[in-house]
Amino acid sequence: MTNVPFHGVIAYPITPFDTAGKVDLGLFKSLVERLVVNGSHGIAPLGSTGVLPYLTDEEKESLTEATIQQVGGRVPVLVGVSNLTTERTVYHAKFAEKAGATAVMIIPMSYWRLTDDEIVAHYDTVAQSLSIPIMAYNNPATGGVDMSPALLKRLLRIPNVTMIKESTGDVQRMHYLRRHLGEEVAFFNGSNPLALSALAAGARGWCTAAPNLIPKLNLQLFDSFQQGQWTQAQQAFYQQFDLLQFIVQKGLPRAIQAGLELQGVSGGELRAPLAKLTIEEKAQLNAILATCF
Amino acid sequence: MTNVPFHGVIAYPITPFDTAGKVDLGLFKSLVERLVVNGSHGIAPLGSTGVLPYLTDEEKESLTEATIQQVGGRVPVLVGVSNLTTERTVYHAKFAEKAGATAVMIIPMSYWRLTDDEIVAHYDTVAQSLSIPIMAYNNPATGGVDMSPALLKRLLRIPNVTMIKESTGDVQRMHYLRRHLGEEVAFFNGSNPLALSALAAGARGWCTAAPNLIPKLNLQLFDSFQQGQWTQAQQAFYQQFDLLQFIVQKGLPRAIQAGLELQGVSGGELRAPLAKLTIEEKAQLNAILATCF
Amino acid sequence: MTNVPFHGVIAYPITPFDTAGKVDLGLFKSLVERLVVNGSHGIAPLGSTGVLPYLTDEEKESLTEATIQQVGGRVPVLVGVSNLTTERTVYHAKFAEKAGATAVMIIPMSYWRLTDDEIVAHYDTVAQSLSIPIMAYNNPATGGVDMSPALLKRLLRIPNVTMIKESTGDVQRMHYLRRHLGEEVAFFNGSNPLALSALAAGARGWCTAAPNLIPKLNLQLFDSFQQGQWTQAQQAFYQQFDLLQFIVQKGLPRAIQAGLELQGVSGGELRAPLAKLTIEEKAQLNAILATCF
Amino acid sequence: MTNVPFHGVIAYPITPFDTAGKVDLGLFKSLVERLVVNGSHGIAPLGSTGVLPYLTDEEKESLTEATIQQVGGRVPVLVGVSNLTTERTVYHAKFAEKAGATAVMIIPMSYWRLTDDEIVAHYDTVAQSLSIPIMAYNNPATGGVDMSPALLKRLLRIPNVTMIKESTGDVQRMHYLRRHLGEEVAFFNGSNPLALSALAAGARGWCTAAPNLIPKLNLQLFDSFQQGQWTQAQQAFYQQFDLLQFIVQKGLPRAIQAGLELQGVSGGELRAPLAKLTIEEKAQLNAILATCF
Repeated sequence: MTNVPFHGVIAYPITPFDTAGKVDLGLFKSLVERLVVNGSHGIAPLGSTGVLPYLTDEEKESLTEATIQQVGGRVPVLVGVSNLTTERTVYHAKFAEKAGATAVMIIPMSYWRLTDDEIVAHYDTVAQSLSIPIMAYNNPATGGVDMSPALLKRLLRIPNVTMIKESTGDVQRMHYLRRHLGEEVAFFNGSNPLALSALAAGARGWCTAAPNLIPKLNLQLFDSFQQGQWTQAQQAFYQQFDLLQFIVQKGLPRAIQAGLELQGVSGGELRAPLAKLTIEEKAQLNAILATCF
Repeated sequence: MTNVPFHGVIAYPITPFDTAGKVDLGLFKSLVERLVVNGSHGIAPLGSTGVLPYLTDEEKESLTEATIQQVGGRVPVLVGVSNLTTERTVYHAKFAEKAGATAVMIIPMSYWRLTDDEIVAHYDTVAQSLSIPIMAYNNPATGGVDMSPALLKRLLRIPNVTMIKESTGDVQRMHYLRRHLGEEVAFFNGSNPLALSALAAGARGWCTAAPNLIPKLNLQLFDSFQQGQWTQAQQAFYQQFDLLQFIVQKGLPRAIQAGLELQGVSGGELRAPLAKLTIEEKAQLNAILATCF
Repeated sequence: MTNVPFHGVIAYPITPFDTAGKVDLGLFKSLVERLVVNGSHGIAPLGSTGVLPYLTDEEKESLTEATIQQVGGRVPVLVGVSNLTTERTVYHAKFAEKAGATAVMIIPMSYWRLTDDEIVAHYDTVAQSLSIPIMAYNNPATGGVDMSPALLKRLLRIPNVTMIKESTGDVQRMHYLRRHLGEEVAFFNGSNPLALSALAAGARGWCTAAPNLIPKLNLQLFDSFQQGQWTQAQQAFYQQFDLLQFIVQKGLPRAIQAGLELQGVSGGELRAPLAKLTIEEKAQLNAILATCF
Repeated sequence: MTNVPFHGVIAYPITPFDTAGKVDLGLFKSLVERLVVNGSHGIAPLGSTGVLPYLTDEEKESLTEATIQQVGGRVPVLVGVSNLTTERTVYHAKFAEKAGATAVMIIPMSYWRLTDDEIVAHYDTVAQSLSIPIMAYNNPATGGVDMSPALLKRLLRIPNVTMIKESTGDVQRMHYLRRHLGEEVAFFNGSNPLALSALAAGARGWCTAAPNLIPKLNLQLFDSFQQGQWTQAQQAFYQQFDLLQFIVQKGLPRAIQAGLELQGVSGGELRAPLAKLTIEEKAQLNAILATCF
C-alpha cells in the first residue's frame, strides 16, 4: 500500500454549463484555478460534484484535459472515471492516464446490485489496464452499492488500488478500516459532516466540494489538526458545520453553484433535470455563508 | 386518465450479447418472438431487465426498432427511454414514438437525489415532446428515487402520463394509489413477489421478466384472477413464488439468462461487470424451475 | 399443527382507565360485550391495544378474569401474556390457562436484542408449563424483535405453538410462511392495512382493534372473501382503508379511545404518558369514520 | 444548563443473579467496588447494562440503595429510573432521590410510539417531582424511540433536565447538539464505538460498561484526550475498538458477564430469556481481551 499521491484537502470543482446546455470550459478552468490558488492540496474533476454521470464521453475527455492543463502540475489531479460498464471504465481510465492524471477515482456504479465478485473483477480489469494508482470510492447514496470493509480489503490487494474514499457517513467504517486493514491504510473522508471525526479516526485527507466556497476554513481545520492544535480544529469544524450539512442536503452541484453566485462568482447553469436552488434555499445558504467568514 | 393501452402480463426481454460484447440482435428477436407466441399481453424492451443503462444510444435505437419489427403489432410495445438527463430522455422518447412504440416507460434515474419539482419538470418536458402515453415507473432499488404517492399524483396530472408502474415491493403503496387517485387509476405491478397482492389491490397488469421462463404459470395467475377463480389464482401464485423471489434476488438479467440456458434456449452473454450465475446458483435455479412445471 | 381454535375477525378491546388512573373494569366489560354482540369471532384482551406492558400484574389478572367471565364461552378468548422475563411470562400464561383462556398470545418482548436460541428457549419454557395453544406474535415495531420466517418455523416445532400472528406489515412474509411452512400453517394477520392482501395470501384470520369502531365493515371484508365474492371484499377493504391506516398511525389505544367517544361510547381515560388525540386529530378521525358508514 | 455533576468515564455495573434467579446483592456490591477503585468518574446502576426493565420494583430499590451505600460518596451516582408509565417513573425517581442519588437517568421507554408532546409531558411530570438533575437518554435501539435534536432541545428547557446521553451511534447528532444547543450543552456519549469521535465532538463524558473489563484503557483514552495528547488518545481508542464493538454486538449484560468470568471474577447468572455467551463467543471475547492488555 504505497503510492499514495494525495493528502489534505482534495477539492472538487463543479461542471458549469452555458445557457445552451453545453459545458462551459472557460468558466470551468477559472473555477479550477480558484481552487488551486486558494490552497487545495489536490484537484478532483469529474466527481459526483462534477456531475460525471450526466456528461457525454466527449465532455468528460475535454474536462479531463482542461483540468490537467490548468493545474499544470502545481498539485496532483484525481480524475473520476466511473462508468456502469467495465469496458467504458477502462476506456476513460486509460484516457485520464494518457492525459496526465495523477490517479483515477472509481465508484462501482450500480443499476443492478453487483456481487462482491463482480465488483472485484471490475476493479481488477481496470487496474490491469493502468499504471497510475486507483482510489476506490464507496458511496451508497449516489452509487447504489455499499462496499463492506471486507470487500474494500479485497480491493486493496489489487496492486494499484492504493486508496479508499469512504462516504457512507458512518465514522465507524473508518475505525474498522484502520483497525482491520492496518495503520497504514490510506483512507480519505468523502462525507463533509464527518470532517472532524474522520481526521480523529486517522483519515489522510478530505475529498470535498466545500473549498469552492470556504477554502480558508477547510484548510484551517486540516492544518490545525495536523499541528496538534485540537481546540482550533474543533472550532474551525463547528464554524463550517452548518455549511457542510447544507451543501450535502441540497446536493453538491446545486448548492455550490448557488454559493458561487452569492459570492459574486459565476457558477454557470445546471444540466436538467438538476435545477437551481429556490429563492428560499438561496437565502438560507446566504445566511449560513455569513457565519463562515 | 384514459389512453391506457396495456393490461395483463407485460413481458420484459433481456438484452443478449455475443462473445465479442456486442448486442446480439438476432437472438434478441428470437427471445421477443418467444414472449409473444407464449401469450404475453405486451412487450417491454429496454427495461431494467434489458439492461438499459448499460447500452449505448445506438444499441438502444436498434433494440427499439428490432422489437417493434418483430412484434409486428400483435401486442402493444412499451419502450424504456429513461436517462439521467432530460435532454437525452426526450431524445430517446421521440425516437421510440417515431419507431412505432405504443408507449414509453420512464423512471426518474437519479445520481443526485432529485426534488419533487425537478422530477415533475423532467416528466413534463418529455411529455410535451410526445403524443404517445407515458408510464411513470417508481423503483427506488434500481432508480435511486422513491416517488411518493403525492408525487405520482402530480405526475398523473400531466396529460399523457397515464400509467404508473409501482415496484417498491410495498402493496400498501398500491392501496394508497387506488384510494387517493381514484378507482380508475391505471397502476401496474412491477414487483414480482407481489403479483398476487397487486391483483387483489386492483392492478391493471404485471410488468415482469418471468415469462421468459414460466409464461404459462404467469398467465394462469392473471387469467384465473380475472375469471374470479380465486383458489386457482392463489395456487398458481404459490407455485411460482420461489422462482419470482429467486430472479429478483439474483438480478433479473443474470437469473433470466441462466434460466434460459437451463431450458435449452440461448440467453447470450452478459455485459461486464454483470457476471453469470455461479454453478451453485444455477443448480438452485434448476431445482426451483422444476417445481414450476 | 392442529389445535387452532381461532379464525376470522379476532377483536382487541382497549383497556379503559378511570380519572384516578385505575383500570375501569365495568367499562372494560361493556366494551368486550359490544365486540361480542357485534359479531367478532374471537376476543383478545391484553394485547398491544390493551396496553399490556403498562399494566401491573394485578391489573392483568383482573382483566383476564373479566374478559372470560363476560364472554362466557360465546367465542374463544386469546389472552396476551407477554413479558420481558421468561419467569413472568410463565406466571401469566398459567394464570390465563387456569382462568379459562382458550389460548395465549406471546410476543418476545425485547430490551436487549434476543438471539434466536434465546427466543426458542423462552417459548419452549412457557409451552412446557401449559396445555392450551400458543400464538407466537411477530411485531418488530412494538416488540423490538423481528422474528425471521426461519425462526417462526423453529417455534412451530414446539407442540403447542400452533399459530402465528404476523404484524411486520410485509405481505411477503406471509407468502414465505405459507410456501415454506406448508399450506396448513395457521397464520393470522396483525397488520390492519394488509387486511385484504393477507386474506389473499391465505391468512386464517385478522387480529384487529377496528371492530371497536367499524365491526360491520370488518366482518363484511372477511365474509365476502370467504364466500368468494371478490369484488365485494375489495370494496369493503377500500372503504375502511383510511380508517385502518389512521388507527395504526396514531396508535391503537389512542385512536380507538377517541373513535369510541366520537360514536357516543365512553372509552375511558388513557394511562400516561399516552395522551388523548388532539382536537385536530379527532376531527380527522371523525371525517374518516363518516366514510365508513 | 448548570448543575452537571458528571464528567469523564461513567461506569455501568451489570446486575448479577444467583442460581435461584434472585439478585445477588453481595456480588453486585463487589462489582460496584471494583468500578470505583479502578478509577471510574461516576457509577450508573440500573441502566440497560443493569437490565433495569427485567427487574421488579423491590429489586430496583435494593440495587439503588446498595449502590449508594457502597459508593459512599467517593464518586457521583446516576440511577436509572425509566419506566413505561409516567406514574412509575415518578415513583422510582423519587425513591432514588431520597436514597441519595446524585442524578437520575431517564429514557422514554416506548411500547406505543410516543409523540413529542407525550415525551415532553413525561419528563416534565417527573422533573417537577424532583430536585436532583435528570439526564435524558436517547437510545432508539433499546428504548424504541428516537428523540430528534429538536425534541432534546425542548427537554433541555425543563429546569432540571441538564444532561443528554446520546446513544444513536451517529456522531452527527452530537455535532448538531453542540452547534444548535450551544457550546455549553452537556452531552454524554452512550455509544461505545463512538468513544473517540464523541470526545472530538465535545462530549463531557462517556457512559460505558467497558470499565467492568478494561478500566485502564477507558481512562487512558479520556485522560489523554483531556491533556491534549492526541496520538495517545487515538492509540488507546484503536486498542479497545474491537472490544467495544464486541460488547455492543453481543449485548452488554451477556458480554460483560462473560468477560468477568474470563478475568476470574464472578459475573453471576443472567435472568432468562437472556442467556450466557456460547463457547465460541466466549473464545472470541477472550482473544479480543488479550489485545487490550
